[in-house]
Amino acid sequence: MGFRAVLVDRQGLIVDTKESWQGVQAVAKGEHAGVLSDALAPWRSKHGSLRVVAAGMIGSRNGWLEMPYVPTPATAADFAAASRTIELPEGDRLMFLPGLTDPSAFPFPDVMRGEETQLVGFGLEQDIVVVLPGTHSKWADIRHGRIERFRTFVTGEIFNTLANHSFLSKVATAEADHASAAFAEGIALARDESGRAGGQLTRLFAVRTGWLAGKITPEEMKSRLSGLIVGWEFAEARAGGWFTEGDTIAVVGDDDLVEVYEAVSKAFGVNLAPAPADAAIRGALAISEYDLRSRGQEDSGRSYQRA
Amino acid sequence: MGFRAVLVDRQGLIVDTKESWQGVQAVAKGEHAGVLSDALAPWRSKHGSLRVVAAGMIGSRNGWLEMPYVPTPATAADFAAASRTIELPEGDRLMFLPGLTDPSAFPFPDVMRGEETQLVGFGLEQDIVVVLPGTHSKWADIRHGRIERFRTFVTGEIFNTLANHSFLSKVATAEADHASAAFAEGIALARDESGRAGGQLTRLFAVRTGWLAGKITPEEMKSRLSGLIVGWEFAEARAGGWFTEGDTIAVVGDDDLVEVYEAVSKAFGVNLAPAPADAAIRGALAISEYDLRSRGQEDSGRSYQRA
Repeated sequence: MGFRAVLVDRQGLIVDTKESWQGVQAVAKGEHAGVLSDALAPWRSKHGSLRVVAAGMIGSRNGWLEMPYVPTPATAADFAAASRTIELPEGDRLMFLPGLTDPSAFPFPDVMRGEETQLVGFGLEQDIVVVLPGTHSKWADIRHGRIERFRTFVTGEIFNTLANHSFLSKVATAEADHASAAFAEGIALARDESGRAGGQLTRLFAVRTGWLAGKITPEEMKSRLSGLIVGWEFAEARAGGWFTEGDTIAVVGDDDLVEVYEAVSKAFGVNLAPAPADAAIRGALAISEYDLRSRGQEDSGRSYQRA
Repeated sequence: MGFRAVLVDRQGLIVDTKESWQGVQAVAKGEHAGVLSDALAPWRSKHGSLRVVAAGMIGSRNGWLEMPYVPTPATAADFAAASRTIELPEGDRLMFLPGLTDPSAFPFPDVMRGEETQLVGFGLEQDIVVVLPGTHSKWADIRHGRIERFRTFVTGEIFNTLANHSFLSKVATAEADHASAAFAEGIALARDESGRAGGQLTRLFAVRTGWLAGKITPEEMKSRLSGLIVGWEFAEARAGGWFTEGDTIAVVGDDDLVEVYEAVSKAFGVNLAPAPADAAIRGALAISEYDLRSRGQEDSGRSYQRA
């Protein structure tokens, strides 16, 4: 995950964006203020001092400063109350958002940083299950206007490590193609509840045995693996009661994974509620406005940043 | 997996061994005979021409020559019948053993290369389930004097890729300690059938959340992961009907993994049948003797090799 900053106007419309592959962990302790100040200088010179909202790993143990986790169930007001605002030398105001923890998880509390802001931006009005795809994918239960509970699935981590460092990585010749038949076949294998395919540790080996049997080409291997692994997440979510066939869920995110997860949702017989692509920005603004209203302050120019 | 050769006498007792981390895939096509000849030269000069048995990946697509897979159910005689013997320039005789395939696996036939020789060496007389730990761990069903069926679990692959290339690898400071409480806790979490811990993709994240919660130290992370992942294999094997509590199984292998798998077996309430540490050698000799008897030839000096 890299650094990403979005400049929005008073109406929340995007004016400009900045992205860098250099994530927050690449910045040494004590140097965050300088890096941020340099990154925002062009915007500041044009628009004056900025109101910055910071969400995600920048508020983690390895980030600028470690923000607390708000416990579930939580609302936008809870995030605003637990945020922390500092004034920067150039006059910018920087608001760090807290993370979210679910103390009901066993054996240890589950955690998220950044996805809670996307959930607020998606909206907490309707009761619905929201999936936030990623390296550490999250399933969240929105209920009674709050984020009620959530669980993490390390799907992206498993896919990336197997695709790049396992028995496949020497044979596979192409990246995953989510429009391919091999991807759909991977999903179908993950969905199989008959037991004939064995558990997941056995199904994963079938990417290799299919190649040995001449049924999967080196081009298809990562597509097949991707379908199998994202499908596995859905199979575990189904077993855990997160959905049953015919339910409506939402997939929230701002990258290609949203399409992938929507395809898998359909393959599992799940309907999709519409979701905005800019949920993170909407969430940051909503929490920032809560904070401003509760302090009785007026809004000025602002930007949203995450790392 | 590297190259390993063992020189045994007419009684099957080990006279000498050679090991190299350079596996068969590191040798270019056409160069295998030269590499083997050089490796065996000291033995040949002392003992005369050798009878060599080659098992494992040396008979694979990426090895010296691709040997067929014998289908289950299979006996030592079936492996002897499908073997192939060539004469080398220096007078050594080299016997390649076939692999084993289980055509009943879904969606593709399962395969092993090398483990079938260990199974023959363990013995096919008693009806028992045998576990062969490894990167691609195998569970085999010995019945009616034959290898009846088997399944692969990619346990070692998952452990190695996550331990070395995931969210853990930057934090964890020590290799897995299989005598530690953290290892036992990992097994216990894998064994939990209540559903409260979620599926495996969620349980894996608990290695990170436990660290964030201050309940798992960086030293303990890989131990915890190891218990969780090997325990996961047993949980899937249990779900697949490979054992139930109180059963007796055997763990066959020649490295530290045997102890690890024996510890996990006990934690799952499984009894252990005794197994020899030299099952691979015993199996190679047994198949070689079958072959010699069926050809009516007399045995001379011999060595066993796998790569």
